[in-house]
Amino acid sequence: MVQLLSQYTFHIVIAAAIAAILYALYLVTQIVKQPRGTDAMIAIADAIHEGAVAYLRRQYSVVAGIAVVLFAIITWLLGMHVAAGFLVGAVTSAIAGIVGMYVSVNANVRVAESANKGLSAAFKLSFQGGAVTGLLVAGLALLATVTTFLVARQNLSLPQTLTTLIGLGFGGSLISVFARLGGGIFTKAADVGTDMVGKIEQGIPEDDPRNPGVIADQVGDNVGDCAGMAADLFETYIVTTVAAMLLGTLTGKGEVAFIFPLLLGAVALVATIIGTLFVKLPRSGSIMGALYRGLAATVVMSAVLLYPITQLYLGMSQFFAIVIGFGVALAMVGLTEFFTSKKFSSIKNLAIASQTGHATNIIAGLALSLRSTFPAILVIGVGILLAYQVGGLYAVAIAATAMLSLTGIVVAIDAFGPITDNAGGIAEMANLPEKTRKVTDALDAVGNTTKAVTKAYAIASAGLAALVLFASYTQELGESSPISFSLADPSVLVGLFIGGALPYLFASMALESVGRAAVTVANEIRRQFKEIKGIMKGTERPDYKRCVDLVTQAALKEMIVPALLPVLVPIIVAFTLGAQALGGLLIGTIVTGLFVALSMTTGGAAWDNAKKYIEEGHFGGKGSFAHQAAVTGDTVGDPYKDTAGPAINPMIKVANIVALLIAPLLA
Amino acid sequence: MVQLLSQYTFHIVIAAAIAAILYALYLVTQIVKQPRGTDAMIAIADAIHEGAVAYLRRQYSVVAGIAVVLFAIITWLLGMHVAAGFLVGAVTSAIAGIVGMYVSVNANVRVAESANKGLSAAFKLSFQGGAVTGLLVAGLALLATVTTFLVARQNLSLPQTLTTLIGLGFGGSLISVFARLGGGIFTKAADVGTDMVGKIEQGIPEDDPRNPGVIADQVGDNVGDCAGMAADLFETYIVTTVAAMLLGTLTGKGEVAFIFPLLLGAVALVATIIGTLFVKLPRSGSIMGALYRGLAATVVMSAVLLYPITQLYLGMSQFFAIVIGFGVALAMVGLTEFFTSKKFSSIKNLAIASQTGHATNIIAGLALSLRSTFPAILVIGVGILLAYQVGGLYAVAIAATAMLSLTGIVVAIDAFGPITDNAGGIAEMANLPEKTRKVTDALDAVGNTTKAVTKAYAIASAGLAALVLFASYTQELGESSPISFSLADPSVLVGLFIGGALPYLFASMALESVGRAAVTVANEIRRQFKEIKGIMKGTERPDYKRCVDLVTQAALKEMIVPALLPVLVPIIVAFTLGAQALGGLLIGTIVTGLFVALSMTTGGAAWDNAKKYIEEGHFGGKGSFAHQAAVTGDTVGDPYKDTAGPAINPMIKVANIVALLIAPLLA
Repeated sequence: MVQLLSQYTFHIVIAAAIAAILYALYLVTQIVKQPRGTDAMIAIADAIHEGAVAYLRRQYSVVAGIAVVLFAIITWLLGMHVAAGFLVGAVTSAIAGIVGMYVSVNANVRVAESANKGLSAAFKLSFQGGAVTGLLVAGLALLATVTTFLVARQNLSLPQTLTTLIGLGFGGSLISVFARLGGGIFTKAADVGTDMVGKIEQGIPEDDPRNPGVIADQVGDNVGDCAGMAADLFETYIVTTVAAMLLGTLTGKGEVAFIFPLLLGAVALVATIIGTLFVKLPRSGSIMGALYRGLAATVVMSAVLLYPITQLYLGMSQFFAIVIGFGVALAMVGLTEFFTSKKFSSIKNLAIASQTGHATNIIAGLALSLRSTFPAILVIGVGILLAYQVGGLYAVAIAATAMLSLTGIVVAIDAFGPITDNAGGIAEMANLPEKTRKVTDALDAVGNTTKAVTKAYAIASAGLAALVLFASYTQELGESSPISFSLADPSVLVGLFIGGALPYLFASMALESVGRAAVTVANEIRRQFKEIKGIMKGTERPDYKRCVDLVTQAALKEMIVPALLPVLVPIIVAFTLGAQALGGLLIGTIVTGLFVALSMTTGGAAWDNAKKYIEEGHFGGKGSFAHQAAVTGDTVGDPYKDTAGPAINPMIKVANIVALLIAPLLA
Repeated sequence: MVQLLSQYTFHIVIAAAIAAILYALYLVTQIVKQPRGTDAMIAIADAIHEGAVAYLRRQYSVVAGIAVVLFAIITWLLGMHVAAGFLVGAVTSAIAGIVGMYVSVNANVRVAESANKGLSAAFKLSFQGGAVTGLLVAGLALLATVTTFLVARQNLSLPQTLTTLIGLGFGGSLISVFARLGGGIFTKAADVGTDMVGKIEQGIPEDDPRNPGVIADQVGDNVGDCAGMAADLFETYIVTTVAAMLLGTLTGKGEVAFIFPLLLGAVALVATIIGTLFVKLPRSGSIMGALYRGLAATVVMSAVLLYPITQLYLGMSQFFAIVIGFGVALAMVGLTEFFTSKKFSSIKNLAIASQTGHATNIIAGLALSLRSTFPAILVIGVGILLAYQVGGLYAVAIAATAMLSLTGIVVAIDAFGPITDNAGGIAEMANLPEKTRKVTDALDAVGNTTKAVTKAYAIASAGLAALVLFASYTQELGESSPISFSLADPSVLVGLFIGGALPYLFASMALESVGRAAVTVANEIRRQFKEIKGIMKGTERPDYKRCVDLVTQAALKEMIVPALLPVLVPIIVAFTLGAQALGGLLIGTIVTGLFVALSMTTGGAAWDNAKKYIEEGHFGGKGSFAHQAAVTGDTVGDPYKDTAGPAINPMIKVANIVALLIAPLLA
């Protein structure tokens, strides 16, 4: 049985990946069949589409330049096969991002149109949009990994195959850190800059078509939340699978080391396809309930299918590791909901603090963001310990892989958020009736929570994936000579300090980038309001495209230095302070990275939802003093949750993969 | 020569400590000779004095209750000698806090009066006040350490002597964490609550005697900035000296292990007495320059005196360690000035960001606070590595001790800040002429920077001291069986996570405590304005005492749970996850603790000074939109820099000392 299964494993994996991709493409045909609405809506959607494509084209041109340089360096230092892996990872990661953006810009206007027919139709369509991205991300990631592995295995030695896979992970992560950061800076700079002049100075509502920055703001949702998130989870998926393969090989699991993680991914992907079919609006109309049903169905089905397979290959203990991985994923979802959903006390207390002003709102939000890390870190810690107890270091890798195998459904749940956000913007700009806006608003509100939930999932996954990478680094170095990374060794300690400082520096740079880019776009919007006289009367069209161009330039300029930090600092530390210090650096980055990223994404979402809670009519509702304070909190939270926080995920992994790549040079 | 010196070492140390104490008492007689001004001033000063004494009495009553319980537990589990050490540490730490408060409440009104005579007289008096606290803190700490050691050494075995000294450190640290936290909550709750109703709701200026919270606000400066800081550095001094003795003994330095750290402290203390004489206002009138002259004189003199002594006992390499310790201290001072002084670009950029509103001010301030950790952590890291290079682990301990030997002069520079702050408040309340206010304002502005600088010094010292404690913990455990604390061990990793989470949880609790306590006092102030009709007209006196009582109760209630975190969590982790996990926890707490504390204290000071920069007339000056935004930033920064940030110092050390205490039970 094992042999029979093993013989066809790779066929099964490839088939599952292709099935997911084909099903996603089928969904695309269903989506594009839907009507795009009035001419006004189509014109807006086209402008958004055009802006998003233009941004991504330029982003990837810049990144391609950097990738070419790295490709040459990798070829020279580590060999052609690693460089080839790097290239595949980089290209497929870029494809994942482009797909995320493409689906979103095509679905948004159709969701707006379908919202005329009511919540049920709009929800169905927007979730289909999300499902396309989710299935394509997971399917492509699995396909890229399995084909790279097969090609490498047939032509190269085992160690070379492993380094090719590490190259694959590096390519994916590097692109992802640029996508997350560039997209994150774009989306928040456009958002803040547009609101600053439109809402505050000119007193016109959000998404008002008279605002020259309004298209840039919508473009931002697509390139940040969609393309960025897709590239991020794409690379986490690949990196985790590769790390599990690597650790399995280094700890002597033989061929199973390659077979099992891929099979796990394939099974979960099939379960995900079925799981998406469970997402249907219940009679109660609970959107969140519908989404969680899909998640629950996927988890249960995956577990049932994986039970016999795991028994066959690895035994009962590693099945527990899978359950632990699923458990951590679900616990992260629950915890984030607790801290960011309007149903619970945290948000209410934040709203109460807004009554006494801007400063008390900020202090309460900061306290919430700091506190939210504690239970999350406990969950991750308990997960690691339990997994280790049941099956050693390898079980930690399996738990991480299991957690990541839910990528498809998680991205599906997440990606529907920005689609509905965009649909709402289009509805507003095209002056659709109040009833329609209510539908898109309801979807958008849920989208906010799912975005926060997914980010916490992504961070926890990134942390686990990075730990598995670190374990591989330890094993790799240990092959030639035993290595301890003792905390009593001052190099390790200093590495820990420097590594710990990286997320702080990175986050600081990201926050400042948003500030600078926002000022650039705000100045342009002010200029247009002043020079194009007919804008406010609605007789002249603002120059949307110029705003998009300016944010694009600013975001691309700002993303380069911070994105290169996790590549350069580990190399510098490795060759000045040595392999022990590098080990400390990796763990330092993981530890503070988890705290900074978790606190920022949770805090940001909490501020956002506290504002929404007040807007529902509590504590004076819209326009009240409490509301003004809550808007301040929301604005502070924006770059927290959408730029700095999420970009830390790929950053942590890039640092760890760079260490793995240079490990042979250090040993 | 060595023998001759060694024979009289303890006499020399005791003589130096007593000399410092006597000189401080002489300064006290000089201060109390100065006039206290008008009847109105005396009445205000008496009210502040009374409030501060009442608060400290109640704070120490609460803490005494907890200390008695711990005394019993320590006696039972670890022996009478450890408990005795604990008691000495606790009582002397409390004395240090009380001294800090006492000097301040007696100097404040005299400084206000002398400000009538001009800057020079007021500066001299306020620095004398600071010098009293500085010399008493360092002198008492040295005296407590040397006498405890001598008594223990004569009556107990060597291992018992060591644990007695650890007990001494624990007593000091525990009291200090309560003093820092309780005082920090008091001072900021009173400040925020008073401003919230007075400035914002009633539109009366700061320090207006009609505000019922105004005395509580002044009391807060004394119990927070003076008593809290004094207790904090007192315990860091003791703990570092004890840790150096311990590590020296465990690494086989023999009697020199005890002699040298005490001698280092004694020599630096003599240099400090002389150094304070160098503090004189130069012709240019630069207050900061005058203070730095004192610091530079102390450093140079200490180095010159320590050179032959170190040669004699330990050799040249350890003298380098001392120089490194001084270097780290000076570098921390310089870095903090760079990030928080109005002379440099950071503050200007923060002021620029205030022009676009509350949110951009907060984002820019958060970015600054995150970024400021990077160079600081590099300095600490380079210091550790260099010290280790020149003389191994013991050199790290010596560098830390050298850094801490500057406590006297650093506290002197710091403590003058709250004295002048209070003097300014009294001048305002007693309606002293504009000219006098200008003098106290000038002193107060410098006080803000010195407070920030000292906090950074205190944090870096706390980090180094904690690392030395950790090294002792490792050695202690390693005595029976070798221990590695390998990062590849999942228990160590999970310990690292839990330890990393502690400062986050602690800081979050501290921030929320301030919020809750501030609301309590704000409600009381509102009640008084409403019920006592004559307050606003100035015909009736508000009930100041009741406000002081309420903040006292609130602060004491809030401080207990967070202060017990660093005691209980290490014990729980040790006995559930083991000694390895506890090692991880200690380092995790040190790493994230340094980042959280540094970012909060620097960020808070930067917000404060950006506000002051705008008030000087930039970007529209007082009352402008930029100023409103800057006030929000300043209010957010208040609990950051005066409550949560500094209280992390003793917290880190308490966790590490608890580990040392329970190490014998784990081995």
